[in-house]
Amino acid sequence: MDRLQVRREPVNPEYERLGGRALIAGIMLAEVPPQCDPLGPDNKLIFAPGLLGGTGVSSSGRLSVGGKSPLTWGVKEANCGGNGGSDLARLGVKALVVEGQPAPEKLYLLHISGTTAELLPADDWRGLGTYATAAKARERWGSGCTVISIGQAGEYRMGAAGVSCTGHKEQDSRLAARGGLGALMGSKGLKAIVLDASGTQSLPLADPELFRSSARRFAQELVESPKTGRKGAMHLYGTAAIVAAVNEMGAFPTRNFREGRFEEADNLTGQKIRETVLERGGQMGTTCMPGCVIACCNVFVDPQGKPVVSTLQYETVGLLGSNLGIGNLDAVARLNRLCNDYGLDSIEAGAALGVAADAGLARFGDEASFAALLGEIAAGSVLGRVLGQGAAVAGRVLGVSRVPATKGQAMPAYDPRALKGNGVTYATSPMGADHTAGNAFGNRLEVNPLGVEGQRELSLKLQLGAAMLDSTGLCLFARPPVFGDPQLMVDMINGRFGWGWSVADLQEMQKSVLRMELAFNHKAGHTAADARLPEYMTREPLPPHNVVFDVPDSEMDAIFSEL
Amino acid sequence: MDRLQVRREPVNPEYERLGGRALIAGIMLAEVPPQCDPLGPDNKLIFAPGLLGGTGVSSSGRLSVGGKSPLTWGVKEANCGGNGGSDLARLGVKALVVEGQPAPEKLYLLHISGTTAELLPADDWRGLGTYATAAKARERWGSGCTVISIGQAGEYRMGAAGVSCTGHKEQDSRLAARGGLGALMGSKGLKAIVLDASGTQSLPLADPELFRSSARRFAQELVESPKTGRKGAMHLYGTAAIVAAVNEMGAFPTRNFREGRFEEADNLTGQKIRETVLERGGQMGTTCMPGCVIACCNVFVDPQGKPVVSTLQYETVGLLGSNLGIGNLDAVARLNRLCNDYGLDSIEAGAALGVAADAGLARFGDEASFAALLGEIAAGSVLGRVLGQGAAVAGRVLGVSRVPATKGQAMPAYDPRALKGNGVTYATSPMGADHTAGNAFGNRLEVNPLGVEGQRELSLKLQLGAAMLDSTGLCLFARPPVFGDPQLMVDMINGRFGWGWSVADLQEMQKSVLRMELAFNHKAGHTAADARLPEYMTREPLPPHNVVFDVPDSEMDAIFSEL
Repeated sequence: MDRLQVRREPVNPEYERLGGRALIAGIMLAEVPPQCDPLGPDNKLIFAPGLLGGTGVSSSGRLSVGGKSPLTWGVKEANCGGNGGSDLARLGVKALVVEGQPAPEKLYLLHISGTTAELLPADDWRGLGTYATAAKARERWGSGCTVISIGQAGEYRMGAAGVSCTGHKEQDSRLAARGGLGALMGSKGLKAIVLDASGTQSLPLADPELFRSSARRFAQELVESPKTGRKGAMHLYGTAAIVAAVNEMGAFPTRNFREGRFEEADNLTGQKIRETVLERGGQMGTTCMPGCVIACCNVFVDPQGKPVVSTLQYETVGLLGSNLGIGNLDAVARLNRLCNDYGLDSIEAGAALGVAADAGLARFGDEASFAALLGEIAAGSVLGRVLGQGAAVAGRVLGVSRVPATKGQAMPAYDPRALKGNGVTYATSPMGADHTAGNAFGNRLEVNPLGVEGQRELSLKLQLGAAMLDSTGLCLFARPPVFGDPQLMVDMINGRFGWGWSVADLQEMQKSVLRMELAFNHKAGHTAADARLPEYMTREPLPPHNVVFDVPDSEMDAIFSEL
Repeated sequence: MDRLQVRREPVNPEYERLGGRALIAGIMLAEVPPQCDPLGPDNKLIFAPGLLGGTGVSSSGRLSVGGKSPLTWGVKEANCGGNGGSDLARLGVKALVVEGQPAPEKLYLLHISGTTAELLPADDWRGLGTYATAAKARERWGSGCTVISIGQAGEYRMGAAGVSCTGHKEQDSRLAARGGLGALMGSKGLKAIVLDASGTQSLPLADPELFRSSARRFAQELVESPKTGRKGAMHLYGTAAIVAAVNEMGAFPTRNFREGRFEEADNLTGQKIRETVLERGGQMGTTCMPGCVIACCNVFVDPQGKPVVSTLQYETVGLLGSNLGIGNLDAVARLNRLCNDYGLDSIEAGAALGVAADAGLARFGDEASFAALLGEIAAGSVLGRVLGQGAAVAGRVLGVSRVPATKGQAMPAYDPRALKGNGVTYATSPMGADHTAGNAFGNRLEVNPLGVEGQRELSLKLQLGAAMLDSTGLCLFARPPVFGDPQLMVDMINGRFGWGWSVADLQEMQKSVLRMELAFNHKAGHTAADARLPEYMTREPLPPHNVVFDVPDSEMDAIFSEL
């Protein structure tokens, strides 16, 4: 970005067998000084599809975005649905690496079509939300292009800023939300990346037969599964299918993580979303990525049937709903739309709003008071800049000690006091407090969520699994077939690339992802002191179970000892 | 503070030979979990005189204040003049350790007189500045009492909050300014400590003859020195004696550390202070501690002869003067008084104001714009809370990348690009960016301030020296006799305590201070990544010499290798 040049380079052989999150970890560890300022010129912003991206394998087109996080100061990967991952892969791009910084206050746009790529001045795009940015880009380059962009939050380099990516529906807005990667994109002076993958050829397959048979079996298993199939909760209710269960467990963040059960949770369930959407003529069972057989998404519409957000999801319902004392899906969807438009991570923003309410700047349950605060963020006022930096900074500045964050990053919608496996993940994952880094909710019958026993082992297993998904481009929802039979993943990879991998090779790759990330973070200054939950969670009992987080530090410190 | 009890305990034998900073390091390492929240109940706030405190040795009555810093997240000691150190020692208190936390929103006051000590409710003292707090306490307990207090900044738990201590003059305000220890005092719900040491006996002396002869020789050397004697620059011009020299070196922070030489520096010199003060009937050559033979202080008065601050000092002149583009002593003194009153570290606050000016919230050179921002801090507005958290948080929130801070704490008035020994100290000292932790200015003829060679060795030597001063209660100005002949310090200590120390014992104590602090910080999570200056200082050349900070990281990493 300092030279305003775009260059296509052959893939460094060392990166050949890495994709998505693994590739980001590899590039960061090899090329980026771990102690660099995340918003300075030495950091790199990386976009990479997973290994299976662009192949048409169901649910495999997630786009990984990465760099050194301005929130955690460690390496960060966040991924999203939409068309970005698939398009980039089909354009023959293994990774798009953004380096350097342009002159201050300059904005650019990167347009990639076929084999050409050019940087264009975008100063007149300044201040646009992500919806307007996408619309403007599509007006210029056609409705078939994919638009990866930042909103106002990213331009302001806010820690709560994510990177937005369009899908195939006009109102689609998918965020690689976490870790402040939108701020990193803003620091590179990059407002948007427009991808035009029309007319690209199918990707080559090393062993077409192996590939097709394994991809078919994978899709088949998803379709036939009682969870991900057409009669399954994931398809019918989407990610919000779990609202009732998490609430019942007492882990549903309520009023700034003060309680674990929300009295109005019934109004926020996946069932309620489905009912509301269908009643109003919205859509259920849509896909976020081309070719996904699960189709868990929705187009949430207002009472007049006008789309508000696509898609309304669990974490958002938790952080912008119960966490703000709001038991009304319309209100949650409206706040969600503001976050999407401003390019804000709804988790980080929702947590910051909860902290703001504790500081007396908004009222739990009062949508308007929170919408006004989101408006402050978009306007870049001093208050907006405080909240836009996320929950940890907001808590520090506003003098609030109940801040649900670790390593500077807010927690997703599972209170770790009542789902302790997630607490171990939040504390130890090189990604910080991310549910996608190792979510123990699905294992609640296997390991008691309120107990200490087995949480470390469970979290490690889940963290390794997440590394596989995030590096191949797979959605978390698509995990059962490949977790159940890793050979299936190996077959798809060998079918695509002909590497002759064994399951052991795949597992070694998964481990190496965590090892590379931990090595980067170690050099960046992370220590055992960072592998902790906020102190108040070890003291303040969470109703209704009145539990604290009591997994001993020694468990956190030992989790990667045999990696 | 949770039990609202005061208890006097015999000294733990392990702490017997520690004083001031060394004692704080010892208590923190042994008793405080290094990973604790600095503003949570597990942190301790410690007040301790140095080993020579209360003995009447010249310049030895500094009061050390310590705990885990909310700015650096490491162990912190800040010390101040005034009567606190001497009074506490004469009251027979080796350390006053404040533990726990009272109910939220409760304020207390600790009154110590003779052998009694009691905690009193102080809710009606809320919101008082430190001057009003001292006046109110003296109204109640007499003008002879010493008042250690926090202002609004400490009540708000701001990172820029210091702890104020009165001296023997009514307008005296001495701050143990650095590291946010005022916020720690605020987090303990302690508004003030009132000491009444009247009627206390002289402290016992193990070897009165040895003590008196060495203390006399020490005072004699100070008096006869061309620097500290009555004709010396320190006595005549105070700490600000060095303004012209630092400016000439090109290390005088100007307009948010953008330049190293200020075109109006002539208006800010120690000579100018003396001239102005004497012309207006103020006082020069006053003391901050009873019995100090150097007497470097001043009572800066306005054109009508009314006292503004006592004493106007170098770091303040740098941070609230040149750093804000202000070349007018009256303006600097007025801003200084506001900081003193609100209980703000003038270094941290001045650096935050410089960052605010870069963010467009004030205008360099415009006193009123900065006074208004200090008013925001005192009022606790959102903007005030941002700035009150210090330069690092202000920079992050306001999106300013030129932030002169390391380990979260702002730099004093020596730009490390043009005084590289200080850069090494800022980066490596367990205290963070403190000039008192090892200031290379005095060695500028010995080691080229612009060169790389020898900076590491110089900084280590100075850091060890600082540990001696800070642990015995000695002022930095009083260092020449004991740095020149450590046996003199040993004799005073042996005369007081009869420990039979050798110079080697003294040196071992100095090393042990750094070792204990580094051990605490290591456990708290400090790593080599924290031993760095801000990235921009390694890139952005500082006029007029157009130098960057280029001491290699390896020098920083090796500095304590033989400790």
